[in-house]
Amino acid sequence: MSLVVQKFGGTSVATAEQIHRAARRAIQEKLAGRRVVAVVSAMGESTDRLIELAYQISRNPPKRELDMLVTTGEQVSIALMAMAIHEAGHHAISLTAAQVGLVTDSVHTKARIHSISAERINRELDAGRIVIVAGFQGVDPAGEITALGRGASDTTAVALAAVLEAEVCEIYTDVDGVYTADPRLVPQARKIGRVSYDEMLELASLGAGVVHSRGIEFGTKYQVPIHVRSSMTDNKGTMIVPETPGMEDVIVRGVTLRRDLARIRLNRVPNRPGSAARIFERVNAHHLVVDDIIQNVTGDGTMVDIDFTIDLEDAPQARALCEMLAQEMDIGSVQVEDQVSKVSIVGVGMRSHTGVAARMFRALADSQINIENINTSEIVISVIVRRDDGEKALRALHAAFQLDTGP
Amino acid sequence: MSLVVQKFGGTSVATAEQIHRAARRAIQEKLAGRRVVAVVSAMGESTDRLIELAYQISRNPPKRELDMLVTTGEQVSIALMAMAIHEAGHHAISLTAAQVGLVTDSVHTKARIHSISAERINRELDAGRIVIVAGFQGVDPAGEITALGRGASDTTAVALAAVLEAEVCEIYTDVDGVYTADPRLVPQARKIGRVSYDEMLELASLGAGVVHSRGIEFGTKYQVPIHVRSSMTDNKGTMIVPETPGMEDVIVRGVTLRRDLARIRLNRVPNRPGSAARIFERVNAHHLVVDDIIQNVTGDGTMVDIDFTIDLEDAPQARALCEMLAQEMDIGSVQVEDQVSKVSIVGVGMRSHTGVAARMFRALADSQINIENINTSEIVISVIVRRDDGEKALRALHAAFQLDTGP
Repeated sequence: MSLVVQKFGGTSVATAEQIHRAARRAIQEKLAGRRVVAVVSAMGESTDRLIELAYQISRNPPKRELDMLVTTGEQVSIALMAMAIHEAGHHAISLTAAQVGLVTDSVHTKARIHSISAERINRELDAGRIVIVAGFQGVDPAGEITALGRGASDTTAVALAAVLEAEVCEIYTDVDGVYTADPRLVPQARKIGRVSYDEMLELASLGAGVVHSRGIEFGTKYQVPIHVRSSMTDNKGTMIVPETPGMEDVIVRGVTLRRDLARIRLNRVPNRPGSAARIFERVNAHHLVVDDIIQNVTGDGTMVDIDFTIDLEDAPQARALCEMLAQEMDIGSVQVEDQVSKVSIVGVGMRSHTGVAARMFRALADSQINIENINTSEIVISVIVRRDDGEKALRALHAAFQLDTGP
Repeated sequence: MSLVVQKFGGTSVATAEQIHRAARRAIQEKLAGRRVVAVVSAMGESTDRLIELAYQISRNPPKRELDMLVTTGEQVSIALMAMAIHEAGHHAISLTAAQVGLVTDSVHTKARIHSISAERINRELDAGRIVIVAGFQGVDPAGEITALGRGASDTTAVALAAVLEAEVCEIYTDVDGVYTADPRLVPQARKIGRVSYDEMLELASLGAGVVHSRGIEFGTKYQVPIHVRSSMTDNKGTMIVPETPGMEDVIVRGVTLRRDLARIRLNRVPNRPGSAARIFERVNAHHLVVDDIIQNVTGDGTMVDIDFTIDLEDAPQARALCEMLAQEMDIGSVQVEDQVSKVSIVGVGMRSHTGVAARMFRALADSQINIENINTSEIVISVIVRRDDGEKALRALHAAFQLDTGP
């Protein structure tokens, strides 16, 4: 009998009505003859409210106790989901991570899954029940309650789908799929039917975050097909699947914009082994998340210029830190440009097509958009532009790569 | 090293400020050189809110899922309490029932404790930590999450105190002890310094409910001294302790009023084996909780009159049920009197003093109060009076047994 894992995010279980709707979806699959495992997030904003409570009590709550606290959100929603299924006359049972045997490491607030036992879940499925599993939670080998990190219910769902050899892992959310661009910015954006794991990872990390990156990584590793779809409609959404040869026919799968970035430029950094390591170790130690890094040799080769981009809100802290580093390391100067955005094109087709970058730069030039930095990887080309040009650039690239009209 | 168990009820941990206050109490005992285990209830009204949520989803939620849901309230408060202790610079760890090894039977929503393992708690105490245990929760032998029933955090605390051989179990609450009468009704009421388990059980069941009955039963069984005291002051409260010979010197420890009762009278019930059983089995099957039952033989001995009291709000249902029973069982008539209250005096001194009942009836007569029914047990005498007379009766008895002035 085929098995489906359904994941319902916080926005899909925020109210009693939505929980009933999610319950009906699970029941529908059950009535269609499938075994159903549902993974549920905490209701709406409840995790945020719990964290707020913690910071009312303590400026620096111990991470173990934070996990003890926040994992209650999922325990609430699995119980309610099971009740909703019972109310509709079907059998369900809710299970915590401890009851499932979802074992993680002991890194509280961002634990990683070590193993999942299929035994209890299979026993409940064999008894004809819909099984509701708490997302986001784990237990470490000592029985301590852990949390997988924000957004990690996706990871729970895909990992369960892998262990249970599910036919598909459905991610129900408040959008109906992955789009060629953010439809709020590009009215011509179209829903993507199929996207490869690699493309989705890039799209997710670039801001089209409908599925959590760790979830996609699990999908890649265990080849679990992931179906991202709306909890409000029955429309097919976007399938995230292993790459097939035909996928390369499309050069660009989607375009993305990261709007609020700052670029830090370190001018004339001594060009010797360990310079970059020293800089970014320090940045990392301050929990500043660096986006892209670009380094060019300058002058007579004894110096390099290092540019990196960072979330706009981290810019003041990064500036202060880099000014200290400039003193310590004899760096020429630090410049901060806080009016930039990043525009990217993503597609596995770039591997087999030539001239994609040139075509991108031409499209931007035709729209009178100046390119400040360029960064490329195998299936992504990104440019830094002035923030004022960001949306125009996004639309220009969407049109230039025929995403407006479809393949 | 001596050990104290402190229990903080919902009203003592309803806000961040109150949680900090509870944390300070625990720390204070720790600094005084004791090992400290704190048992915490859910914050304020949070259990009620969770139950409300359940009934928004389902008219008849499965009990297993209700327990899964409501036990999250205590998990939230133990985490916050541990955070508050950390914030004050001391070591604490929160533990769920599963982590403690508090094993119950499998009767969801009113599970009973089977066993508690001291191993994990002692390990944490040995490491110098204050241990925070979730009240109200348990796990059954199969690892299912259970709830002990409303108010049962007291039970958790006293049971833990028994297992850990605590010197005392402190119950922190929003009143500063047990009183000779409800001070809102009897301004002369005084705080009782020491009360025996048996007296407290009667006082609790008669409405002076500052400690849950099951908790007191555990106290009796394992001879755990229980100290009921206010979370707002440092005043000594009331000690609930094993009975000592001197206690009988006081005839009446306290007087109580159950205000809103109804009396159902079944007139001329055929006096044959099984009549009473049949009636009260049916009443029980409808989840109506009967207070007192009084039966008198009437007429030529072929009939009996059965009176029973019941919560006023259950009276309409009880009347309908009894009228059906009257038809089926050939009972003469059903009368409902919904304007009655019960006034009781409680004290182990009654065992060794004679004429207590007479003295009670005289006091009521002197206040022009008519007695409708009388019911006695070893340490309690109760009378049913008209509701209008209830408070007057309470005050009259409080004065008559010298509770106004003290021993």
